[in-house]
Amino acid sequence: MLSPSIITLASDFGSPYPAAMRGVILDRAPGLPRIIDITHQFPRQDVRTAAFWLRELLPWFPPAVHCAVVDPGVGTDRAAVALQVGEHILIGPDNGLLAPVARELEGDIQAFEIVVPESASNTFHGRDVFAPAAAVATTEKALARKEMFVPRDEYVDLQFPRPTTGDHMITGTVLVTDDFGNLITNIPREKLPDRETLSVNGEQVPFAKQFAAVPPGDRVLTIGSHGNLELDVNQGRGEDAFGLTTGETVHIDW
Amino acid sequence: MLSPSIITLASDFGSPYPAAMRGVILDRAPGLPRIIDITHQFPRQDVRTAAFWLRELLPWFPPAVHCAVVDPGVGTDRAAVALQVGEHILIGPDNGLLAPVARELEGDIQAFEIVVPESASNTFHGRDVFAPAAAVATTEKALARKEMFVPRDEYVDLQFPRPTTGDHMITGTVLVTDDFGNLITNIPREKLPDRETLSVNGEQVPFAKQFAAVPPGDRVLTIGSHGNLELDVNQGRGEDAFGLTTGETVHIDW
Amino acid sequence: MLSPSIITLASDFGSPYPAAMRGVILDRAPGLPRIIDITHQFPRQDVRTAAFWLRELLPWFPPAVHCAVVDPGVGTDRAAVALQVGEHILIGPDNGLLAPVARELEGDIQAFEIVVPESASNTFHGRDVFAPAAAVATTEKALARKEMFVPRDEYVDLQFPRPTTGDHMITGTVLVTDDFGNLITNIPREKLPDRETLSVNGEQVPFAKQFAAVPPGDRVLTIGSHGNLELDVNQGRGEDAFGLTTGETVHIDW
Repeated sequence: MLSPSIITLASDFGSPYPAAMRGVILDRAPGLPRIIDITHQFPRQDVRTAAFWLRELLPWFPPAVHCAVVDPGVGTDRAAVALQVGEHILIGPDNGLLAPVARELEGDIQAFEIVVPESASNTFHGRDVFAPAAAVATTEKALARKEMFVPRDEYVDLQFPRPTTGDHMITGTVLVTDDFGNLITNIPREKLPDRETLSVNGEQVPFAKQFAAVPPGDRVLTIGSHGNLELDVNQGRGEDAFGLTTGETVHIDW
Repeated sequence: MLSPSIITLASDFGSPYPAAMRGVILDRAPGLPRIIDITHQFPRQDVRTAAFWLRELLPWFPPAVHCAVVDPGVGTDRAAVALQVGEHILIGPDNGLLAPVARELEGDIQAFEIVVPESASNTFHGRDVFAPAAAVATTEKALARKEMFVPRDEYVDLQFPRPTTGDHMITGTVLVTDDFGNLITNIPREKLPDRETLSVNGEQVPFAKQFAAVPPGDRVLTIGSHGNLELDVNQGRGEDAFGLTTGETVHIDW
Repeated sequence: MLSPSIITLASDFGSPYPAAMRGVILDRAPGLPRIIDITHQFPRQDVRTAAFWLRELLPWFPPAVHCAVVDPGVGTDRAAVALQVGEHILIGPDNGLLAPVARELEGDIQAFEIVVPESASNTFHGRDVFAPAAAVATTEKALARKEMFVPRDEYVDLQFPRPTTGDHMITGTVLVTDDFGNLITNIPREKLPDRETLSVNGEQVPFAKQFAAVPPGDRVLTIGSHGNLELDVNQGRGEDAFGLTTGETVHIDW
């Protein structure tokens, strides 16, 4: 039996559109589920960045229905999907957004296509498709309701690049730049030596346990809370100090 | 009997003032009502824009107490009002903010003046007048408590302009510019022909079902999720591309 | 018996990191406590401003667990603390952040050091230390669990400056600039005369009950909702019009 009483909401909608999704959910889900915002400040239309954060954030939650919408193809023929993974249900557009977190959660992945209501607008599926589906998904055996959820074999995948390793070096990619300006790479802690400095694109930078190991304004490498190498500035923006941004290459030598 | 267990909050307060409203509500309302944010990012002091969004957003909610504060006249002799409409109760300053949504909700409108507590500050009625009134309003027969709510015959109205139609043309107004930069007009879908392009202030623009019908960066006309004509840019800002803003005139020809 | 079912969250984390804290709390606290955001928009690393707002905002809440994180020293040897004050429990870094609100709440202050889990990251104690402690703190006699909370005699204090008074004058400090650009001073209402104007750093400014007492764009002095003198502009930014900012001195004469 699956009966989560939590619905998380994530989108790039900013303000005030998410309020309509909250209204629809409270109106249609039985038992007033707890609505928890992940964020509505994902960078606009940036499916990859949102997919990264969903993968990092949702596994901390107890079983829940997670409704996530970053949807440049809204109104086109891209499908709407629900992915059941263990006791979690992920709901959103079938554009790769949900794939990384689905793999991260424990359990097999079962995919369903969400039947789009005829009355849905063409520009706000968050309110007209995904929120209603999330409301229904909080009810028992919801995904067996074939008039709303049609089993399907596949869903759009999204893979993050992997780092390549060499002799005393590793080449990775900036996956995401966070709000603090920290550059989050795809280089996991395990691939790095236990040294006090590392060379980043040819320049030596302290490699420390915390930002405060260097003076305010100085560059520092840390292992972020996601377990990967971050390029940071203590009380500043790594993005500016390293001159890098999302998608760019990072060469680490030692 | 009216006993909503949901209080929505909307304001132009940004951060962190709304937290005081949440505290007051949780402290005074019995049974820990669910507090749901509409937004606290309404443009500062912009009663018309907030009134538009309340009209678009609140009707999606089940019966609730809706507390909304955009209040350039705080501390003056403008009244504080509660409007009961069906099973909804609207609470806020009597400056027109609540009028459009009150008309949109189903049911007769009954107006009450909220008695301002002597201890209220002059600058933060959100915390000292409206949040306490919203907390009380979640209780049964709350509006019959004459020491807090005094029946009154009228409240300040606010009307949005209506479009004017001619021969193969319609002249409307930009009601609101949303966070995406989309220009939302007062021209309803029903007044427009089923064409692939329309002329906007003299220039032909594609009229499509969704943003993605045109390449990223191109202008496009859509019917927004509110049912009115929007002037948009796919993955961009209609506001910039059309050189228009809230309150300005839009001539549509075909 | 202490069993609050409310956890407030406050931080300078912006978006989307607070979502991980919400997930941890819902996963670990029994009975799905209500999670209420104070704000996650405190100015980055600014312990003093956050401490001011916590002091102003948290006393409006009923008994709750308040989890606040503005933590420039994360990962260093600064302690993590829990302060019990009456039926409230305050949780956060031991850097002064919690001291002003602890003094403001009713009741004796009992301090505890939070034992940091070995698995905690070095950079995100919000998720790995403070949120788990807040979840546990909602349970009965939580602070008696000595494997998690170790009684201690002291905690880091933080004092705001006090104004100095003279003959028909008072000299104070701008404690905080709010999001509206209002300059909030440390000068309480009781120290000021009942006059229609006051001299601020040598210039006469109207002293009124509300912003709207002066035309839009004009400077005005008010007593803010916190009870202190504020330097404001009606529908504008006091910060710009007075040329002052947080920490600077304000001479008032009459």
